[in-house]
Amino acid sequence: MPQNAPSAANRAGFPHEWTSVYANARHNAAFPVSHDAPAWLRQGVGWNYAEARAWPLSDKLPFGDKVYGEREALPVQTQFMGNALGVTAVDGVIYAESDDMFAYALNARTGQLIWRASPLQNNLMGDPVVAGNSVYLSAGSVSFNFAHVIKYAKTGKTSRGEDESFNGVVSLNKNTGKFQWLFLTQGEAMPTPAYAYGALFVSTGAGNVFAIDASNGRKIWETHVGGIANMSDPVVYKGRVYLSMSVVPYVYCLDAKTGKVLWKQTIKGAVNTGMGDVAPVVDNGIVVQDTVADKRVHDGHKTVDTIIEAMSAKTGKILWKANMGRGPLPPRLQGRHADDP
Amino acid sequence: MPQNAPSAANRAGFPHEWTSVYANARHNAAFPVSHDAPAWLRQGVGWNYAEARAWPLSDKLPFGDKVYGEREALPVQTQFMGNALGVTAVDGVIYAESDDMFAYALNARTGQLIWRASPLQNNLMGDPVVAGNSVYLSAGSVSFNFAHVIKYAKTGKTSRGEDESFNGVVSLNKNTGKFQWLFLTQGEAMPTPAYAYGALFVSTGAGNVFAIDASNGRKIWETHVGGIANMSDPVVYKGRVYLSMSVVPYVYCLDAKTGKVLWKQTIKGAVNTGMGDVAPVVDNGIVVQDTVADKRVHDGHKTVDTIIEAMSAKTGKILWKANMGRGPLPPRLQGRHADDP
Repeated sequence: MPQNAPSAANRAGFPHEWTSVYANARHNAAFPVSHDAPAWLRQGVGWNYAEARAWPLSDKLPFGDKVYGEREALPVQTQFMGNALGVTAVDGVIYAESDDMFAYALNARTGQLIWRASPLQNNLMGDPVVAGNSVYLSAGSVSFNFAHVIKYAKTGKTSRGEDESFNGVVSLNKNTGKFQWLFLTQGEAMPTPAYAYGALFVSTGAGNVFAIDASNGRKIWETHVGGIANMSDPVVYKGRVYLSMSVVPYVYCLDAKTGKVLWKQTIKGAVNTGMGDVAPVVDNGIVVQDTVADKRVHDGHKTVDTIIEAMSAKTGKILWKANMGRGPLPPRLQGRHADDP
Repeated sequence: MPQNAPSAANRAGFPHEWTSVYANARHNAAFPVSHDAPAWLRQGVGWNYAEARAWPLSDKLPFGDKVYGEREALPVQTQFMGNALGVTAVDGVIYAESDDMFAYALNARTGQLIWRASPLQNNLMGDPVVAGNSVYLSAGSVSFNFAHVIKYAKTGKTSRGEDESFNGVVSLNKNTGKFQWLFLTQGEAMPTPAYAYGALFVSTGAGNVFAIDASNGRKIWETHVGGIANMSDPVVYKGRVYLSMSVVPYVYCLDAKTGKVLWKQTIKGAVNTGMGDVAPVVDNGIVVQDTVADKRVHDGHKTVDTIIEAMSAKTGKILWKANMGRGPLPPRLQGRHADDP
């Protein structure tokens, strides 16, 4: 067994797999803790683990108020700062992906390192997917390169992450972190893949959706839907794959077996990246998607509506829609701690 | 003293500072080893140190033959693979910058870690500059973001690295690696700064050249010359700063005191990035610059001339020019070890 792996007693009470971002198509990562779970899990436990590029909280951050450049682009800078999403809890182990390009497996009780791996020179911004003996990671950055800048100027089209570094989905042994296979993609593969039917489903910055054989990394099908995948992670529900894309914003429903697009739907007024950054939730035959929409200047401040919309999982027909209110553009980390006023 | 620092005896025989990429304006990093240098330095010594993202040589690389995307953009991928340049040797310590975003100080005799630091979430691609009690690093990546892609489409202009992450020059204590100051720049600061007259001179992906007070990180002057700085590091010679830029390719000579451009010169037929990737060499009143030039397809293969040109350091006047021959485009790492056929 690798160092610091949990004992059998400390593996009890946990999920045995983690097949999607936030664990399931409902995106509710909470799991019930049974009465035979160890006391530390029932009562809770606290520890810290410093990632490779951790900046000591006691140190003065060198970044002041001022961040250069266009306001629109500031969020990019926040994406190199740690764990973009939550962690994965399986059989007494916490798996985490970090923007520092490492994936970590930690003992859930002690916080001690079991393994760490950096199989690709790229950001890992998802939630590790665990199924069988494998952990699956997706890699991609938010960047463009000069060739694509020129291409966009000429054609109005570009793909994010292409030729920036190696993008794709990687499989590691969940106990040792050892490399098993890599599925390279043209654009960045930033969303967390969804695991179902022995396959992984992922969308990319080149506007493609892939089904990949989870056992060997071979492609099952590929569908070009267009747009750019941001952080909207595909979910699988009753034989179908649901996902959202940015630029232009759409929710897509694909047949999980064939990759055929069964329907697509949008939310009126959604800003370009509003849907591509939020994973749809599916349950009870309903797809729920939210977005920021209808950007407008109000009293000198940029404001947006916050829209939530439910669609029929079968047809994409809009079932209901709610506006949770107009408010300022979401706050951004501008070179400081997010909680620093 | 920090851990693993060299003893006084093991500091002997080394340079006491390192003020430029490859040590000096001649770019000859070899230094004479005196007879009182320790035996291990006179005879040579061998060790390995694994950087944060080192991939064990015994492991199978997951990357196959195929790399996606446009040929022109492939070099980008090679830039996340370790040490872009050589190392710095000062007083028994080896200083190194890595694309893994860490800077390292290692005991030159033993290879043991004295300190490592990752003060910016960005690639460090230069040669650490050491002067006085400080080590100076420059940070910048080769990437563009979506806002700049759109800007380029509209205006034909862009700056590299802007809003991708924090770019700039950072000062650390050379003995401890502790942060001292940060000078933020708009575009990437990938070239190694040159140290002279108590100042650091650096060029950026936004087409700017800066003189920075090395003691406190304050700006002395700023000159916008245009273009994009790649890996062409400024050199200082007799009160002047020499540097090359890409897109459009030019050698510039600036007054070190005022930042005034005294002359600029180009090499006929130089490809856009040909000069911006090679630091000029200055000695004996002559600036020597090379470039690949005149890209042409020959028998179905892309070929280039390899031009070397000497200019008067005083006036920029071309003194002589040689074509070292036409050959294939330089080989690129395409998802494999560079030496893998």
